[in-house]
Amino acid sequence: MSQAAYKDSQLYRIRHSTAHVLAEAMLERFPGAKIAFGPPIDDGFYYDFDLPRPATDEDMTWVQERMKAIIRGGHAFSVREVSPDEARVLFQDQPYKLEAIDDLTAGRTDDNGEVVAGPADKITIYTQDTFTDLCRGPHVASTSEIDPEAINVTYKMPAGAYWKGDEKRQQLTRIYGTAFENAEALADYLHRLEEAKRRDHRLVGEKLGLFMLSPLVGKGLPLWKPKGASLRDTLERWLRQVQVDNGYEPVITPHIGNLNLYRTSGHYPYYKDSQYAPIQVDDEEYLLKPMNCPHHIQIYKSEMRSYRDLPVRYAEFGTVYRYEQSGELNGLTRVRGFTVDDAHLFVTPEQLLSEFKDVVRLIQYVFSTLGLTDFSARVGIRDPKSDKYVGDDSLWEKATAAILQACQELNLPHTVEEGEAAFYGPKLDFIFRDVLKRRWQLGTVQVDYNLPARFELEYVAEDNTRQRPVMIHRAPFGSLERFVGILIEHFDGKFPVWLTPVQAVIIPITDKHAEYANGVAKQMRAQGMRVVVDASKNRMGQKIAIHREQHVPYMLIVGDKDIAANAVSVRLRSDEDLGALPVADFLALAKQVIDSKSLELK
Amino acid sequence: MSQAAYKDSQLYRIRHSTAHVLAEAMLERFPGAKIAFGPPIDDGFYYDFDLPRPATDEDMTWVQERMKAIIRGGHAFSVREVSPDEARVLFQDQPYKLEAIDDLTAGRTDDNGEVVAGPADKITIYTQDTFTDLCRGPHVASTSEIDPEAINVTYKMPAGAYWKGDEKRQQLTRIYGTAFENAEALADYLHRLEEAKRRDHRLVGEKLGLFMLSPLVGKGLPLWKPKGASLRDTLERWLRQVQVDNGYEPVITPHIGNLNLYRTSGHYPYYKDSQYAPIQVDDEEYLLKPMNCPHHIQIYKSEMRSYRDLPVRYAEFGTVYRYEQSGELNGLTRVRGFTVDDAHLFVTPEQLLSEFKDVVRLIQYVFSTLGLTDFSARVGIRDPKSDKYVGDDSLWEKATAAILQACQELNLPHTVEEGEAAFYGPKLDFIFRDVLKRRWQLGTVQVDYNLPARFELEYVAEDNTRQRPVMIHRAPFGSLERFVGILIEHFDGKFPVWLTPVQAVIIPITDKHAEYANGVAKQMRAQGMRVVVDASKNRMGQKIAIHREQHVPYMLIVGDKDIAANAVSVRLRSDEDLGALPVADFLALAKQVIDSKSLELK
Repeated sequence: MSQAAYKDSQLYRIRHSTAHVLAEAMLERFPGAKIAFGPPIDDGFYYDFDLPRPATDEDMTWVQERMKAIIRGGHAFSVREVSPDEARVLFQDQPYKLEAIDDLTAGRTDDNGEVVAGPADKITIYTQDTFTDLCRGPHVASTSEIDPEAINVTYKMPAGAYWKGDEKRQQLTRIYGTAFENAEALADYLHRLEEAKRRDHRLVGEKLGLFMLSPLVGKGLPLWKPKGASLRDTLERWLRQVQVDNGYEPVITPHIGNLNLYRTSGHYPYYKDSQYAPIQVDDEEYLLKPMNCPHHIQIYKSEMRSYRDLPVRYAEFGTVYRYEQSGELNGLTRVRGFTVDDAHLFVTPEQLLSEFKDVVRLIQYVFSTLGLTDFSARVGIRDPKSDKYVGDDSLWEKATAAILQACQELNLPHTVEEGEAAFYGPKLDFIFRDVLKRRWQLGTVQVDYNLPARFELEYVAEDNTRQRPVMIHRAPFGSLERFVGILIEHFDGKFPVWLTPVQAVIIPITDKHAEYANGVAKQMRAQGMRVVVDASKNRMGQKIAIHREQHVPYMLIVGDKDIAANAVSVRLRSDEDLGALPVADFLALAKQVIDSKSLELK
Repeated sequence: MSQAAYKDSQLYRIRHSTAHVLAEAMLERFPGAKIAFGPPIDDGFYYDFDLPRPATDEDMTWVQERMKAIIRGGHAFSVREVSPDEARVLFQDQPYKLEAIDDLTAGRTDDNGEVVAGPADKITIYTQDTFTDLCRGPHVASTSEIDPEAINVTYKMPAGAYWKGDEKRQQLTRIYGTAFENAEALADYLHRLEEAKRRDHRLVGEKLGLFMLSPLVGKGLPLWKPKGASLRDTLERWLRQVQVDNGYEPVITPHIGNLNLYRTSGHYPYYKDSQYAPIQVDDEEYLLKPMNCPHHIQIYKSEMRSYRDLPVRYAEFGTVYRYEQSGELNGLTRVRGFTVDDAHLFVTPEQLLSEFKDVVRLIQYVFSTLGLTDFSARVGIRDPKSDKYVGDDSLWEKATAAILQACQELNLPHTVEEGEAAFYGPKLDFIFRDVLKRRWQLGTVQVDYNLPARFELEYVAEDNTRQRPVMIHRAPFGSLERFVGILIEHFDGKFPVWLTPVQAVIIPITDKHAEYANGVAKQMRAQGMRVVVDASKNRMGQKIAIHREQHVPYMLIVGDKDIAANAVSVRLRSDEDLGALPVADFLALAKQVIDSKSLELK
């Protein structure tokens, strides 16, 4: 559901109204509490309070029960317009509301000082039961439209917030709540929240031995342990091959660059705050590379190009380094060094549409192959009122039309957002919704008229004139680190077999079966499978528990009977028992699952 | 030939004696010239002169001819001992010799002030024909032992040098010369010199589109163009697989690290001069990583290890950054950022010998597979007189014995050099002699007791005590960049087919054969081959000339007859014409060459 559709929805009204019910119950529990603002948000609502004492779990349980009782009361939401002076009387004990009334009567301006609302001479208030709030609505007609079993204010801890978000003003307590159309939808939501906590990629990544962070190496700089490196390498090699098959040429460039390179590109000092400080080398300065594009541009420029050479498509898994506040860092999903599955296409204006389509098609293919089928696109186009954009109007129109046409022809669900283009060209972002229905922005495709101009890129056109190519920046995953973090949570560490670091474990029942186990492992490795033999001293039950915890897709138990039949007894990580299979049959099954990149185990 | 054997050889005496003949001829050509020192060097000799005027090509041609005449004179080299005072009279016009006499009579000390030669009361002089030099010999008995047709002083430009290498002293002119046992050996040598110039990897790399340097990206920071990236990737993937097959586990670590990591390892400030300056980040400092070892150690330390887990072998193609003077930089062979085919093994002391042998065996396999068969090892052991080494004496003895035993058991030709160990352990360097008989130091294997102690590494031994593992550092290629530079020159850009960026080009005779060409290309790509179709407007002769220049192993020409026979007409880059081969036969041939990593084309 888009933001606009959400704001028009019954769910939005339910949540907004439940926020008022929360405030009513809170005022009963905390007499003398002062109320601030309480808007709906993406997954519910919040309300900010100035409380006489801290809220405890017990308070919140009481409040939630009280809210249900109020809702059951079937109170109407009545709306009324009052004059500012009447409002000031009504809210005489509520200083935050009084300040809000002053703001409304003074009119509002945005950060740039532009007037966004004229001075109000009428103020809207909403009342339900005993509670009245300053509010523009919309609300449900009556609390009877709210399902009392579909609300919750205890799923998220109360948190600190500042009045008007200004850290110099009063600190308030933000109480989060949510509401759904029915109890089932709430239960589903609460379950997904629990799941998200349980699947936290930092926990799962640690348990599966995928990556680590080391204070001695540095903040926001993950180290990939063998299993994580295997997973990442498998992803990279596959994407690399898909790209090569589609006419991309891998290149490799250094992780630093002369500061003048980024001055020319405009990345310095424009993005200075998100870059590491320059390094002095003799009489030059070098920057840890924040982007790969200027490097690829130098390769493009190293030869004179003809229209016959275009498109040129350079791809690199290029590790870039950007500064992030240490408080913002989080596992793999927010880091200071990350690897972009980057590519830059240098195309003639005539090639733009077909190349853009091919890029989108490739990304669709990549996501679908990984089983990430719930994705859509967000097209960022120019704000027609702004003059911050570089490049010719007709080029912008052509590029925007190309992007929209590509979305349509490829049946890519998309929204169009005005003003969301980069200053150098329109773009398309891929939004993926994971199994917990959380939205993640992944890959991006951007059209760029700026860098070709700044670096004076050229090609010789058919008529022998020098022309300027257009650049397309694209990265399906965006950041490999972040993408793997998302995959860990999406799959809960149970990756498709082809991606799984250890695809099978062979467990000999006793020492005398170890030789056979090693022989089977050798056969499987010869087929390219990643296999271990667990000949440790642990008991069988322990071994199975350990490898199950590690989500090893295939546990192959081998004993006398298996040896006699040249078989393996196959247990899946889903706990399904396939019984004894001839080695050749199991190999064929596993190979088929792996080669087809199946999400299934058989 | 080892340095010691060289100094004992007739060739050494020939060169030393020819240096004296050079001085004689120079004094005839440049009356009043002052002579300094003139020692034999690896590939010949030089003599330093203080000349009254610059030497021209014409002078050098005259001198070379005059030397031949002197040699033909059959003059004996006679040796005589004189007192310092007699010597001062003999060399009264030669101020550099007078200073050398003073030095000899004063005795000599080395850089550390240690006496390396006591004061001399006798001085040795050698005379041939009209020329007498202060010299300890040895020389040939007579110039008749020198082949006048086997000397040369014009192959290398005269160069500047300082008296005693001290840039505050007089600048001299260094004249290089060489001499061989016979004219054929000289001709061979001069040919190899010419070849080395022609094969310069910077020229060949540019011609083949392998890599580039960009002043805007920075000094000593090569960018790998698509063909070079393909070559490097093929090498890396192969070595990676060989390593995985041998129990190595790839890991991936960031390119920077907190300065404290390198303080703990001792790399900072010890190697400060060869590192980039630290980067300030908030209240911490970070270093572009000069080594991968501290990062791998953090992964080792992330879990408690048992003796059953060892050896742990972490491998990474880890790009490191080190500062080099800009004047020292050279193409791929001397750079500021390079990728080490690094691995670190954490082993118990008991595992050291067998692990060391496996490491050497793997490197032997790698070099041999690449066709680099002319290699030997240099074992660096402790200087028993020095106390700069860390670690227990008995451990050193054990490690040194292990290295020597490994060399013997694996039939690895090796020399042992005292005092050439690292301060933290003994090491083994691989020396490769290329097709032009130049020696290159490639891979290295080092035993390390220091880092395990500095990082307090442990494992739980069988008796439940905590023990310290030993580390082995090893890198077969050393630097991927430098290694590829060496490969380019060794193979003259004609890489083995499996490494070649473009393995085959298909050339349709006319446009109407293009579809067939594309079909054949598709079949070959499905087999993993790297193939292009040249459907350009160039004439056939031009096309063949272009792809021959690019050393494409297989040029496949396709026309009506080929289509009719489902064949390709195969021309090798060696110019051999295999005629028309059925597509399937050619594919089988090429696959066999590629899969076996053959150095041949068929």
